[in-house]
Amino acid sequence: MYAATASATHSLSQVDFDAYLTETRDLVLDEIRRFARIDDPLGASLYDLVMDYPLRPAKGLRPALCLATCRALGGSLAAALPTAAVLELYHNAFLIHDDVEDGSDRRRGEPTLHLAHGTAVAVNVGDAMLALAMEPLLDNVRLVGLGKALRVLQAVATMARTTAEGQALELRWARQGVRPLEDADYVRLAESKTAHYSFVAPLTAGAILAGATGDQIERLTDLGLRLGVAFQIQDDVLNLAGDEGVYGKEWCGDLWEGKHTLVLAHMLRTVPPETRQRVEGILRKERPGPASRALDALTALVDRLAGEGAVSASAKRALEEGLVQVHGGDAKTRADIEILIEEIAARGSIEYARRLAASHAHDAAASLRRISEGLPASIHLQFLWSVVDFAVQRDS
Amino acid sequence: MYAATASATHSLSQVDFDAYLTETRDLVLDEIRRFARIDDPLGASLYDLVMDYPLRPAKGLRPALCLATCRALGGSLAAALPTAAVLELYHNAFLIHDDVEDGSDRRRGEPTLHLAHGTAVAVNVGDAMLALAMEPLLDNVRLVGLGKALRVLQAVATMARTTAEGQALELRWARQGVRPLEDADYVRLAESKTAHYSFVAPLTAGAILAGATGDQIERLTDLGLRLGVAFQIQDDVLNLAGDEGVYGKEWCGDLWEGKHTLVLAHMLRTVPPETRQRVEGILRKERPGPASRALDALTALVDRLAGEGAVSASAKRALEEGLVQVHGGDAKTRADIEILIEEIAARGSIEYARRLAASHAHDAAASLRRISEGLPASIHLQFLWSVVDFAVQRDS
Repeated sequence: MYAATASATHSLSQVDFDAYLTETRDLVLDEIRRFARIDDPLGASLYDLVMDYPLRPAKGLRPALCLATCRALGGSLAAALPTAAVLELYHNAFLIHDDVEDGSDRRRGEPTLHLAHGTAVAVNVGDAMLALAMEPLLDNVRLVGLGKALRVLQAVATMARTTAEGQALELRWARQGVRPLEDADYVRLAESKTAHYSFVAPLTAGAILAGATGDQIERLTDLGLRLGVAFQIQDDVLNLAGDEGVYGKEWCGDLWEGKHTLVLAHMLRTVPPETRQRVEGILRKERPGPASRALDALTALVDRLAGEGAVSASAKRALEEGLVQVHGGDAKTRADIEILIEEIAARGSIEYARRLAASHAHDAAASLRRISEGLPASIHLQFLWSVVDFAVQRDS
Repeated sequence: MYAATASATHSLSQVDFDAYLTETRDLVLDEIRRFARIDDPLGASLYDLVMDYPLRPAKGLRPALCLATCRALGGSLAAALPTAAVLELYHNAFLIHDDVEDGSDRRRGEPTLHLAHGTAVAVNVGDAMLALAMEPLLDNVRLVGLGKALRVLQAVATMARTTAEGQALELRWARQGVRPLEDADYVRLAESKTAHYSFVAPLTAGAILAGATGDQIERLTDLGLRLGVAFQIQDDVLNLAGDEGVYGKEWCGDLWEGKHTLVLAHMLRTVPPETRQRVEGILRKERPGPASRALDALTALVDRLAGEGAVSASAKRALEEGLVQVHGGDAKTRADIEILIEEIAARGSIEYARRLAASHAHDAAASLRRISEGLPASIHLQFLWSVVDFAVQRDS
């Protein structure tokens, strides 16, 4: 596995890695509280909701990457803290809107925001967080000077646009069933929907704020892309294999949503044509929603009442037709998902994905080695090395 | 009515007003196409969706206000065009997300984006539009210089935050049923959810780009707030009284959604306590969604089948209980809405709202008169006068 290529002396111990994350996370949350203006009476309830996702248990990897890069390159904590907090705010806004888009039930061990407060509130809270992210980036002009502030604004603008493009591509492929199946197509998707906002923007914004050279920023962009792809592949793998075979709440959520993953792409391109057609048919089906689950209970009720003779045979048919109309079509079933899981296992697609993640992490390590040359040893640089390990070794 | 207070010589004829709007709208759409990058293969389908709402029939009032203010104050068309296009993009992003939040079926005579392409796509397209709005504002540095560019960015950041706060307040009040009923509470809501993004930001951004003084910007802010409140009250009135008594698609949408309007506030504070309680109970009920309408059809079917003896009495009760569970509670009925309409008519609340709109438009005219002093006569200034008339005289 990959860890052998990063010298052990470069990485932090698990304890020190966790301590680094905890320390930066506390600083970042204080910063978010500061510019989320929770004392404004007009917006009091809005800002409680803005703080909801950021305060749930999480690593805070993105702001930590921004701060570590700035400090590893000789910049100060103070110079990067507002920008790090803005990136965490963006991440949480994307999570809220993603949860709406994917119809997800749980996030960080609790009900999703739209499940707890309705879709209307969730969409608006995400918008509020995107709006709140602008002002600290403008205040950067006073904090770090005009040139750096404008370059960070440009980096964030590019990140926001690229992420929306990636998300659009994912939604399109999920609805189509049929999608391009080469590794390069998947990598393009992972780079745009994940790598830019989770890695490229934190690393390059941190570097800009430290006054890095164009060369350094180019190498950090490359590091961010490789790390982001390794991270996303591992995310896909954990979604299928993370829960040790027990059906959990979110386990196989990607399959229910029909998301394009490297695992799925590998399976689809290696199965026989007739299996492929069947699998594509399953992927095109809707994910059953909460209403759909309640309607399943009603269908079972009609069945039972007909069995007891309380509903006539023709009434049963009429009611079932009516229920299908409310359903709005055919939704995926657990049996469908099991077919996908069997084909994935038969094709060795998870193992294939793990190998590709390791290869991207290997490239990331090579990027970081070039970046490290000439930089003084520091806990911040060690933290960056640890993240390269984490990208493929993590289990959560 | 108000029109008498604005001298006729100041306003444009209807024909010239429409021509001014058409001309600026064409320029703005070209500008949006330019920075929406519709030739990017990765985002091709995303950008078709980004252009969907902007290309539907609309006045384009916000960008026209921005361009007219800049030019009336001696600035150039070129200086304000990208910013005007950004404001139109924001407006359309807000409309897409508002339609999701309100569960609206139609926008500008066509199905809403979420109805045509699903909620997931609609949320993401709105996010993409907000992301696309940042880069042209950064390009303003080259176009108009650093100082103006930063002030416009600040104005847009404030506008985005204020709008999200106003939207949050509206959603909270709509869900509560009980809400504060003074005119001042309504005015605060209308200023934050509507006036800032529709009037204050276009007017002040245009002024900043023309190099206006702090005094001028303060007066334009006041003009924008008064115009925005007049505009929003008229919007509320048209929602109830615009369609000459014929039940249209969107007619009374505000009542179905339980939205706080001046009309509703006046009715609630003038009815006897027992009526008020009944009305608040109606407002708290959910709006029936598309699934809910399909379930109503199922309930009718169960009824009919029971009448024919094909479903037993106990089976009917069991099925009705099951349907109520899927419904997820009690939704508003047409009879509920008719009760609200009757009370509004009995209290003269629409007439009251019209008077308050006229009073805000009167204040807006006073603001514009002060702004006009010392400015050369121009078609752009005449356009601003026409908008003051339009705010209370419009019927669409």
